[in-house]
Amino acid sequence: MRMDELARCVKEASIKLAGAGAEQKNKALARIAGSLENRKEEIIKANREDLRRSEKEDLAPPLLKRLKFDEVKIAEVVDGIYSLIALEDPVGKTLLSTEMDEGLELYRVTCPIGVIGVIFESRPDALVQISTLCLKSGNGVLLKGGSEARETNRVLAEVIIKAAGEAGIPSNWAALLETRSDVDEMLKMDESIDLIIPRGSNDFVRYIMSNSRIPVLGHADGVCHCYVDEDADPGMAVKIAVDSKTQYVAVCNALETLLVHEKTAPDFLPELKKAMDEKQVELIGCPKTRSIIPAAPASEEDWKTEYLDYKLSVKVVSSLDEAIEHINRYGSGHTDSIVTRDKEKATRFMAYVDAGNVFWNCSTRFSDGFRYGFGAEVGISTAKIHARGPVGLEGLVIYKYKLIGNGHLVGDYADRSRSFKHNQLNKDFWLQS
Amino acid sequence: MRMDELARCVKEASIKLAGAGAEQKNKALARIAGSLENRKEEIIKANREDLRRSEKEDLAPPLLKRLKFDEVKIAEVVDGIYSLIALEDPVGKTLLSTEMDEGLELYRVTCPIGVIGVIFESRPDALVQISTLCLKSGNGVLLKGGSEARETNRVLAEVIIKAAGEAGIPSNWAALLETRSDVDEMLKMDESIDLIIPRGSNDFVRYIMSNSRIPVLGHADGVCHCYVDEDADPGMAVKIAVDSKTQYVAVCNALETLLVHEKTAPDFLPELKKAMDEKQVELIGCPKTRSIIPAAPASEEDWKTEYLDYKLSVKVVSSLDEAIEHINRYGSGHTDSIVTRDKEKATRFMAYVDAGNVFWNCSTRFSDGFRYGFGAEVGISTAKIHARGPVGLEGLVIYKYKLIGNGHLVGDYADRSRSFKHNQLNKDFWLQS
Repeated sequence: MRMDELARCVKEASIKLAGAGAEQKNKALARIAGSLENRKEEIIKANREDLRRSEKEDLAPPLLKRLKFDEVKIAEVVDGIYSLIALEDPVGKTLLSTEMDEGLELYRVTCPIGVIGVIFESRPDALVQISTLCLKSGNGVLLKGGSEARETNRVLAEVIIKAAGEAGIPSNWAALLETRSDVDEMLKMDESIDLIIPRGSNDFVRYIMSNSRIPVLGHADGVCHCYVDEDADPGMAVKIAVDSKTQYVAVCNALETLLVHEKTAPDFLPELKKAMDEKQVELIGCPKTRSIIPAAPASEEDWKTEYLDYKLSVKVVSSLDEAIEHINRYGSGHTDSIVTRDKEKATRFMAYVDAGNVFWNCSTRFSDGFRYGFGAEVGISTAKIHARGPVGLEGLVIYKYKLIGNGHLVGDYADRSRSFKHNQLNKDFWLQS
Repeated sequence: MRMDELARCVKEASIKLAGAGAEQKNKALARIAGSLENRKEEIIKANREDLRRSEKEDLAPPLLKRLKFDEVKIAEVVDGIYSLIALEDPVGKTLLSTEMDEGLELYRVTCPIGVIGVIFESRPDALVQISTLCLKSGNGVLLKGGSEARETNRVLAEVIIKAAGEAGIPSNWAALLETRSDVDEMLKMDESIDLIIPRGSNDFVRYIMSNSRIPVLGHADGVCHCYVDEDADPGMAVKIAVDSKTQYVAVCNALETLLVHEKTAPDFLPELKKAMDEKQVELIGCPKTRSIIPAAPASEEDWKTEYLDYKLSVKVVSSLDEAIEHINRYGSGHTDSIVTRDKEKATRFMAYVDAGNVFWNCSTRFSDGFRYGFGAEVGISTAKIHARGPVGLEGLVIYKYKLIGNGHLVGDYADRSRSFKHNQLNKDFWLQS
């Protein structure tokens, strides 16, 4: 089947799926979890084939590691599906209800977005995670994986689509795009794909964001900051910096640049250096930093760099406002924190730093859907519309307005024989399918 | 100043504006309203110059009509500004509050999007409306008007920016792009513009949507449907069809295609024809329609056409599902209604029709921000993310997460020495700037 035909089939099925109830979707998710467990030998065998071929083709070791999909990984994705089942259905929630006039009631009700395009590099767990998130939220999904994982992806997609079908989900709600079709072709399908979720390296995500008109949910970079104010508790600041930087270095919410007020720097920086030395973090500093502690010299490029490594750039600033300006200039709008005892400064920082997550006196590593208590994480978004920061299931839904009348005509309001009341009803949409 | 430099200035000012309080923004709006009134002679004079030049240059009469900005129009936009002042500030609303752990509180708080790009054809009132909506919601705005209105736009922008500045709003929050720069240049500025709002003809909006990676808030077409079910009250259905079609034909929420169940068609269509004849609406029908009433033959193209005129295409369908399929295939996702006495069918229609507004037993003409009671309308969106249907001020805001701790570290949760509570707090973000 041609790619655009396949996409149209998914679109048609997605409209049917939009009407599926919570119970049916959860039943399908449980069946998917069961099938993944029952057919794990088959999945692991396909994955071994991918690993063998990719090794021969000299795939880079970090990619080989991500490609691996063994019993542990299967158990993890199955656990993820059971957590997803436990979550409230994001579809059909009434967000607003207004009595426009007697017998004329308006409801804003959540509904699926439509068709989600998922593009992922080697990791096959991304296929399972995102397709089940789409199912829970009633969206159709077009899956495009990397060629290195083609056998694994083929089995996983088959298992998921078959299991969902057995629970009565329209069979075309999901489709795997085989690797010969180009990613670029998918990026042009703005007629049939409503949202793209990319999973992969920063370069990969950046490429997708720059080459499609379809909205993208995700982030290319996480250049996160911690600003240590002159009124900071220095002990707390050191601990927060160490946790933010080293608790897990390879992730988007890890600290990359520390800013410190010039009045605090002489006392604070030696303490920071000592703590970072213990964790073997290399420091890269501005000239003022280097006049206080030993550090490699920072270039302009360093302020924009997401190291994802045991490296930290450090800059001395002369004021809170300079810190805010630096963050808004070099940051990626992901997560930025301030350490201070001064409530007014914290308020100012949180108001003026233009990021999805702005923190006071805590680690940048907290910015995560599960830590926030969302139960599921669709991704972390640095976009400025639709969804920002860690995105839960609600990022996969939009709403429609449902208006119920009894022969109401606009002409009657235009000629003033009737007038609007606009009373808030605070009640749920009352029609059940 | 170069366009990208200008955009950067607006972006910087927009960050300052994000921290402005409701009182200050309302004061600025009141000053703008006052200045527009005080300087109306100057505005009208500039507009006359534009009209004179455009007439000489043979601008089409409908565009000339839209270009006109006289005392009546000024009074209208001034009224609009006073309504805007009366609305609640959309910024700083707490959408979610969670106690993640003792002393670790998470808040989701609304904030401005950043910089809005406004592109409008001849109508100068669009400049005033959208720039004041942006100010109320704390967004910077880049204004790009048509060359035919250049003198009017120049005066209006000057009046607005000066008046806002007198109320302490950062002077670069708004900028008028002069006409020599190309619209295409603006469409490429995805680094500095977060959202584009186009105001103009369908072709104009379609061009903008197809030529920018920046998200667009708006709609290109309004191909709205009314489906008259076999269980419809025929008298009600005729009245709803007439109101939907003729109450104002030149607007996006006017009816373009009527679908009627085959069992109802023989009795209903002659009644419809009689009523539409009275309003001088030309009927264009499918073969079945034409076997019952006289009508011009409909082509495939007719089902996709937004006439914006005294024309209505009519199709006989054999079932509710055929009606839903037709609407999802040919509709534009704007507004579609069903007339029926059957609650289950209405529910099915409203669940499966993929449109921003789905109506039961009332006129399509109700889909409008003011009629919905939003107090202001930013536009009507047929997008599937961020904002859909009539968009009020809340379409110009997004949110950020504010997390307040007291030295909290992720390491303590990773090693299980602490655990998350995730209690809903239901309280407003408590820091005030």
